[in-house]
Amino acid sequence: MEKPTKILDLFSSYREVLDKELKDFFKNQRKYDMYKHMAYFMGFLDEDLKEIEAFGGKRFRSSFTLLIADFYNNLEATIAVAMSVEIFHNFTLIHDDIVDKDTMRRGRPTVWKLWGHDHAINTGDAQLILAHRALTDSKYLDAQTILNVQTFLDEKYLEVTEGQYLDFSLTEVKLDDSIVTVDNYMEMIIKKTAVLVGAAIASAGIAKGVSKEEVQELYNYGLNIGIAYQLQDDMSSLWSGSEVTGKMQFNDIATKKKTLPVLYALTKLADKDKEELINYYNSSSDIKEEDARTIVSMIESVGGYDYMKEEVGVYSKKAEEALSKLSFTPEQKDQLSTIGKTLLSL
Amino acid sequence: MEKPTKILDLFSSYREVLDKELKDFFKNQRKYDMYKHMAYFMGFLDEDLKEIEAFGGKRFRSSFTLLIADFYNNLEATIAVAMSVEIFHNFTLIHDDIVDKDTMRRGRPTVWKLWGHDHAINTGDAQLILAHRALTDSKYLDAQTILNVQTFLDEKYLEVTEGQYLDFSLTEVKLDDSIVTVDNYMEMIIKKTAVLVGAAIASAGIAKGVSKEEVQELYNYGLNIGIAYQLQDDMSSLWSGSEVTGKMQFNDIATKKKTLPVLYALTKLADKDKEELINYYNSSSDIKEEDARTIVSMIESVGGYDYMKEEVGVYSKKAEEALSKLSFTPEQKDQLSTIGKTLLSL
Repeated sequence: MEKPTKILDLFSSYREVLDKELKDFFKNQRKYDMYKHMAYFMGFLDEDLKEIEAFGGKRFRSSFTLLIADFYNNLEATIAVAMSVEIFHNFTLIHDDIVDKDTMRRGRPTVWKLWGHDHAINTGDAQLILAHRALTDSKYLDAQTILNVQTFLDEKYLEVTEGQYLDFSLTEVKLDDSIVTVDNYMEMIIKKTAVLVGAAIASAGIAKGVSKEEVQELYNYGLNIGIAYQLQDDMSSLWSGSEVTGKMQFNDIATKKKTLPVLYALTKLADKDKEELINYYNSSSDIKEEDARTIVSMIESVGGYDYMKEEVGVYSKKAEEALSKLSFTPEQKDQLSTIGKTLLSL
Repeated sequence: MEKPTKILDLFSSYREVLDKELKDFFKNQRKYDMYKHMAYFMGFLDEDLKEIEAFGGKRFRSSFTLLIADFYNNLEATIAVAMSVEIFHNFTLIHDDIVDKDTMRRGRPTVWKLWGHDHAINTGDAQLILAHRALTDSKYLDAQTILNVQTFLDEKYLEVTEGQYLDFSLTEVKLDDSIVTVDNYMEMIIKKTAVLVGAAIASAGIAKGVSKEEVQELYNYGLNIGIAYQLQDDMSSLWSGSEVTGKMQFNDIATKKKTLPVLYALTKLADKDKEELINYYNSSSDIKEEDARTIVSMIESVGGYDYMKEEVGVYSKKAEEALSKLSFTPEQKDQLSTIGKTLLSL
């Protein structure tokens, strides 16, 4: 089968298109190093602010924006939209790294680690403003279309901050707190992660001026891909070796993350096991690998693995349903389906 | 003279107009407490997130926006613009308080003090997005006008983050570092403080669709008022009693702030005195009140007080010159002049 390779090559080719524009965009800002810190984070400069080609992220969201735009024969006009999405996404990471105290990302020191918290907060703020400017500076879109896309994106950008708010709220309480529920967790990951995938895809439709119904299905497609992708991520921390994920196995458990398999198990475990699980999470000491294994066994014992597989399937199916309603050709739908399956490694 | 009182009453009456809209705006956001933290900071809620009327700032910038809009008979349509300016300004303060480690503002605990750094960073981010939404949600302005105002404001908002960047850059080096110059200091305060005053005033002209020349003079008027205001602030820390400023006298010196009187003195002092001043600032211990008095005397000895008075006069005059070129009636110009003089307490 040659098709998957082709479409995946096409998908990754948008990265190049976009990176050229992004590189120029940051270079064209005023003289302050603040803008170079952004370019560093995007992979265009090294720590000494000299030009380099480093890995600055997969450009997964913005590549989706451009693929859909390409399907609509509207690629050039939509680059400004994809730039806004990518600049916004990276802004969230700059601030996330402060909050999570992460010193490394994509194999490189984080912005706060290199230039301090104060600069990282302010550089992120400036980058959020630039996410707006990248779009409003567009020479291809008319004022009404820019406003339509901007209003839509700001609504979704705001939801991402709501997702961050929910994440903090769930993180700062104990595992047996009444707000720690499957529903609240789903609301959190949807807002924090999936909404921006939906927005990246739907905004290409808004830029083209397609019908409200088509925009909605584009959004549903991306949103559900995003949810399935995140749930798969939750699974792989528990059920893939570290050689697959690049992270320590059971890392989510070791760091006491309240991910879906844990929250699901809580609703199913017998009282004694439930108490044991809660005690592991509430204890002041770290969870050792041996104990993490015990917890994963507990989760499996109440069908947690099958539940997660099922949930990933549910959201993948929802994405496929939305896809089927889009105005694209059968071949284009096949291509999107292939990309979705590759992303989800199904 | 009754006029000054009247115009100042009018000026402060915009606060009420705006606060009603702002209160509703935050109340109409989704259910998350994050939005209530913003409303707390604006003075609409107390620490327990119950309704209250607390002091949440003078609304100085946005009142200017509305006064100019009123002169243009365009008040209602410009409220969305004034909201954006005020929401943006308060967003910068939420993040400034983190960076400056300030636990109190306007007599109330700061957002990070009450809800932690992580929430304060994220709440600020969300508020910056809302500064855009307040404007783009406008029902009175057409798409092109919204885009014109938004593009202009984003450019100025970005300059504010550049001012913050410069402030960090000047703060983190020693007093005798080559970047610590009068020019760099002026660039910093212009971007950090004055630009937003200019933007608040000029955006009312853009919302009305006045000529580019008029927008430029509106901006020059506000910018120079903003500069004069900031320089006056620098002066009052050194030459007004604490009963006037509400801050400890010599506070800027005690906290080793590199304000204009200090930087000016550095260019004028004989080598021995210059060295002494640098030693005070570079020493690891605090500057005591007695030493601060010595420093102020050194500044006075090279004409620092007269220089500052003159500089305030220079920028006030520039503001008056810009004002004279505006299309307003002589009475309206008198009113603006009165407000400027009152703000600057000349």
